[in-house]
Amino acid sequence: KPERDVLMQDFYVVESIFFPSEGSNLTPAHHFQDFRFKTYAPVAFRYFRELFGIRPDDYLYSLCNEPLIELSNPGASGSLFYVTSDDEFIIKTVMHKEAEFLQKLLPGYYMNLNQNPRTLLPKFYGLYCVQSGGKNIRVVVMNNVLPRVVKMHLKFDLKGSTYKRRASKKEKEKTLPTYKDLDFIQDMPEGLLLDADTFSALVKTLQRDCLVLESFKIMDYSLLLGVHNIDQQERERQAEGA
Amino acid sequence: KPERDVLMQDFYVVESIFFPSEGSNLTPAHHFQDFRFKTYAPVAFRYFRELFGIRPDDYLYSLCNEPLIELSNPGASGSLFYVTSDDEFIIKTVMHKEAEFLQKLLPGYYMNLNQNPRTLLPKFYGLYCVQSGGKNIRVVVMNNVLPRVVKMHLKFDLKGSTYKRRASKKEKEKTLPTYKDLDFIQDMPEGLLLDADTFSALVKTLQRDCLVLESFKIMDYSLLLGVHNIDQQERERQAEGA
Repeated sequence: KPERDVLMQDFYVVESIFFPSEGSNLTPAHHFQDFRFKTYAPVAFRYFRELFGIRPDDYLYSLCNEPLIELSNPGASGSLFYVTSDDEFIIKTVMHKEAEFLQKLLPGYYMNLNQNPRTLLPKFYGLYCVQSGGKNIRVVVMNNVLPRVVKMHLKFDLKGSTYKRRASKKEKEKTLPTYKDLDFIQDMPEGLLLDADTFSALVKTLQRDCLVLESFKIMDYSLLLGVHNIDQQERERQAEGA
Repeated sequence: KPERDVLMQDFYVVESIFFPSEGSNLTPAHHFQDFRFKTYAPVAFRYFRELFGIRPDDYLYSLCNEPLIELSNPGASGSLFYVTSDDEFIIKTVMHKEAEFLQKLLPGYYMNLNQNPRTLLPKFYGLYCVQSGGKNIRVVVMNNVLPRVVKMHLKFDLKGSTYKRRASKKEKEKTLPTYKDLDFIQDMPEGLLLDADTFSALVKTLQRDCLVLESFKIMDYSLLLGVHNIDQQERERQAEGA
């Protein structure tokens, strides 16, 4: 397909391709049930992926070359989470309503990316639906916020609320628990030390991100904070060497 | 007002201020009839003006400091055209439907500005409505495509059509007529000579602009072409000096 500018209409397009198991002029034969593959807003997402520096062949390779790895579900939304075996992308199943909502947000999402390129909101790379045997499976492909390459020593899910915001006992038994606001207050009473420029840039970005979320009337969001402790990493490295 | 990012909703806002002739807490007294001043999408247009490098105080000064100059109407649309006395801005009256249409196009207009900054489409700086005595006057403020600073020796309105595309006899009697496609073919049989880079950049820009117009389902548009002849300018300068 030739490169061209994204138009307003592109956000509302759904591309639909039928894959009969016996193959067709356009699609290869396969060993699954007949299925239909729908791509939401293909031109818009291609533009987003390009903005994020994701090359088309890398994207396809990451998603399709190795089986996805299922993650234990950290949220209460009923979604399933997968990570690509190369650790690059998170794939999340979404409900019909959620997919519809996300698609409706795309023009505003575009505007935020354009004006606020440092945004810390999720990077959405694609939205798809597989229809087979009367069932629909919708998935959204996102960036992996905390990939393995940088080891995190602490993880917090912060909402800015103190109501019931403590990690469960079960969560705390994990190798790397996701702590919450009350844990943060208790365990990091001095907070995080950032240099002045980083701090003000971060606050500015978070404020702009919050404005966008507010404009979308989204209120159930949190800040996922990973702490990579350089001293601890150094000690671990030395212990390994010893 | 504090600077902030433009949100999707901003395109649909209409700010309305009532100016009673006796004045109010918010508005000065004046010698006109009571009127209401409506500003369409104020935050979005402020963002556009900033993109175009128009400073808020310059904008107000150009529009309000001296009376506007009415132009003889070149189109058949029934619109009145004005130019600010400093030659910076064109003000055009628009019908209700046209204003509504323009407002609906703003998100797509935003996207084009963002992706195609060299766009040659009109620069829209503001859309307003004055309500007084049961009447509505809607105006759009635009860039002056051919300001006096650069003298044009020839002017063409090109549609890419040859059907009835010749300037009228009346038009040709003007000091600087606006010629049309058939005049161009006849008077400039060799076309315009542009260097290769300028040509390809121009064609690319026009193609992208046309794609946007097409996506807006606008088909009645033309290319306003001004020719500043450097040799002729030089001869004129020498003649003046003589």
